[in-house]
Amino acid sequence: MTMASKSQLASFVPKLLEELSQFGADPRGGVTRLLYTAEWLEAQQYLAQQMQELGMDVYFDRVGNLFGRLQGTSGEGPVVMTGSHIDTVQSGGFYDGAYGVAAGVAALAHLKETYGQPVKTLEVVSLCEEEGSRFPLTYWGSGNMTGLYDSEQGAECYDAAGISLQAAMHACGFGKAEQRAPRRSDIAAFVELHIEQGPVLEQQQLSVGIVEAIVGQHRYTVTVGGTANHAGTTPMPLRRDALAGAAAMIVQLETEAILTGSPLVATVGKLTTTPNTPNVIPGSVSFTVDVRHIDETAIREFCQTVFQQFQEIAGERGLYVTVEQWMEAAPAPMDGQLRARLSHIAERMSLPYTVMPSGAGHDAQLLSGVCPTAMLFVPSHGGISHSPEEYTSPDQLAAGTTMLSALLYELAYEEK
Amino acid sequence: MTMASKSQLASFVPKLLEELSQFGADPRGGVTRLLYTAEWLEAQQYLAQQMQELGMDVYFDRVGNLFGRLQGTSGEGPVVMTGSHIDTVQSGGFYDGAYGVAAGVAALAHLKETYGQPVKTLEVVSLCEEEGSRFPLTYWGSGNMTGLYDSEQGAECYDAAGISLQAAMHACGFGKAEQRAPRRSDIAAFVELHIEQGPVLEQQQLSVGIVEAIVGQHRYTVTVGGTANHAGTTPMPLRRDALAGAAAMIVQLETEAILTGSPLVATVGKLTTTPNTPNVIPGSVSFTVDVRHIDETAIREFCQTVFQQFQEIAGERGLYVTVEQWMEAAPAPMDGQLRARLSHIAERMSLPYTVMPSGAGHDAQLLSGVCPTAMLFVPSHGGISHSPEEYTSPDQLAAGTTMLSALLYELAYEEK
Repeated sequence: MTMASKSQLASFVPKLLEELSQFGADPRGGVTRLLYTAEWLEAQQYLAQQMQELGMDVYFDRVGNLFGRLQGTSGEGPVVMTGSHIDTVQSGGFYDGAYGVAAGVAALAHLKETYGQPVKTLEVVSLCEEEGSRFPLTYWGSGNMTGLYDSEQGAECYDAAGISLQAAMHACGFGKAEQRAPRRSDIAAFVELHIEQGPVLEQQQLSVGIVEAIVGQHRYTVTVGGTANHAGTTPMPLRRDALAGAAAMIVQLETEAILTGSPLVATVGKLTTTPNTPNVIPGSVSFTVDVRHIDETAIREFCQTVFQQFQEIAGERGLYVTVEQWMEAAPAPMDGQLRARLSHIAERMSLPYTVMPSGAGHDAQLLSGVCPTAMLFVPSHGGISHSPEEYTSPDQLAAGTTMLSALLYELAYEEK
Repeated sequence: MTMASKSQLASFVPKLLEELSQFGADPRGGVTRLLYTAEWLEAQQYLAQQMQELGMDVYFDRVGNLFGRLQGTSGEGPVVMTGSHIDTVQSGGFYDGAYGVAAGVAALAHLKETYGQPVKTLEVVSLCEEEGSRFPLTYWGSGNMTGLYDSEQGAECYDAAGISLQAAMHACGFGKAEQRAPRRSDIAAFVELHIEQGPVLEQQQLSVGIVEAIVGQHRYTVTVGGTANHAGTTPMPLRRDALAGAAAMIVQLETEAILTGSPLVATVGKLTTTPNTPNVIPGSVSFTVDVRHIDETAIREFCQTVFQQFQEIAGERGLYVTVEQWMEAAPAPMDGQLRARLSHIAERMSLPYTVMPSGAGHDAQLLSGVCPTAMLFVPSHGGISHSPEEYTSPDQLAAGTTMLSALLYELAYEEK
């Protein structure tokens, strides 16, 4: 297989995504490819075969991360790496994760055929698990590469069927001492190409988004307590209605988030009412609050303000309110030099682009802790992701792949 | 057994309620006595035995309504009737329903012993089923007496175990052609004594509440549709958040209800969010709206106003909203002459009272369609009902029983 021409580079990615979508094709629609399942392993093996046919050296590490490598002329020095993941959510789309892997394979193959052996070694990686859809744990692959996790962990991390992460990894043929340790300290730069998973690029008719930072996230559970009472016999002024109080808080949260402005987002995604009966005034309501921003201080100040407002709302209504935090992830800024390179490339190629936050988490946020890291987005039709309805057109996919290829060229061929 | 003195009248009711609570005593607390179960039948039979010992003629009708009768001197003419029900909700309290039956038994026994045979016939009834806790149907007993139901119905009305109402009735020994038909056209007046099930009497330190009308009820399901989207990647201005919209509607409903004022009450008791995941903006929310008032027009005008406001809220937010009605019960005004008699009696006895709506439904609303009907409330501690924590003190129970007794005396002894 060859792909020396630009048109071949463009057609390769949709074709490989189409082929990959056969592994784990879900009768409900879309693709379900969970970590360490047969479908996931077959997809990794298929990718390995493709990489090999395109002239790359191929290896898996101990946890199952798959690498395609083009050895550089400068020897065993730092590696320029790109890639993403091919695990999916339940009934997910064709593009989330898989695009970044397919585009990385295409870019390396194209560079090798066009320019021959790179100076710096180039690698494309298909990371094992980003979504956390099978096990209650995310970023297992990139976390093992960057030191967040150790491959020995996960003996007490179970899937819905009660199988541990360790057991599933071993059943897949990984986790053996003789396999290559996943921890890396040789990465010169990491670049991840991904679909946006939001509506911004499409609405602004842009080709690519250069990620400024991956947002930090705080997640909380807010519990509002009142008194469950008869809906007919309790006059309005004598009520301590937990749902009416929660509703006032949700409206206040939204108002404050709009006031604070982009890139802050705040979401109440899950809400539970007790006893949840049409003719009983709710005695208790719990809801989640998810707050994200690229600036940690902005998240903290926002949360402090709204939780104070929640207390005031509760006080006025004779309710009590408790707030419990259950997740805190720091923002991950992307490398300034790599971002500048991407801007220049987009300008040179006349691709309309913007600089934007990533509101979703990605493997790149772990890599950004150990090496200069960049992230590039292409549009998601309708902003939809994690759904069989995910779609990015072949032209849009090609624009991202071309930019990725150009950046990898600069990093691996032009730099000493 | 005798109860000629007032102190005996006062002590009889708590004692009978205590005895009744043994039938269906629930290990979770309180009493579970569902229609046509062994516990319910044994309680009815125990009551029948008590009535007999107190000198009443006792009979069951075809559906299992139990009557204790004091034949009047004026022959087979109209009957003055009192009573309530002894079926309960799951893990219900000692007082809801049972109090009105026990007080009726006490009042008839007291009147007979004090004044001898009445002029008009007096009956106390223990109605079979008010709550609708076993079968998806309420007021089976009073509905059969007043023509809402026919005793042949209920063959396709099933409990959770798949047993039909007809089958359960027959298994209990009822439903036979030779048994007395339940339909009545001989009732001169009906009086129901009941716990308030709300906080008003206790908060205002009143002994009794004279019911002006049983409220009408409309119930609706409101569905708000938006777009489920990623909580991180969808900027605030691009969201169509169904939960934020529903929250604004719930706050608006409450505001409008407070503005409209008593006796209107409006409640959102049940709410369901989809997909109900912390990191996904809710795409759809359904919630119930329960609106009650003693004036049908007031209910209609209120609903029209708030549903128009819901449409406006939806419009501003790019959401759609649908409203579906699934219950409509007309208000049941209580008889003016009987209410006046109750007011005079309370004044004569120096019992602090108020005139108030019944926010809950009762058997009396069915009887009010066929004869002059009155309802009397005693305080519920903390406004609590349908719970093992239901409580009304012996003194409060006695005040109600004494007033009931005085009204029955006027209607059955003083009237020709």
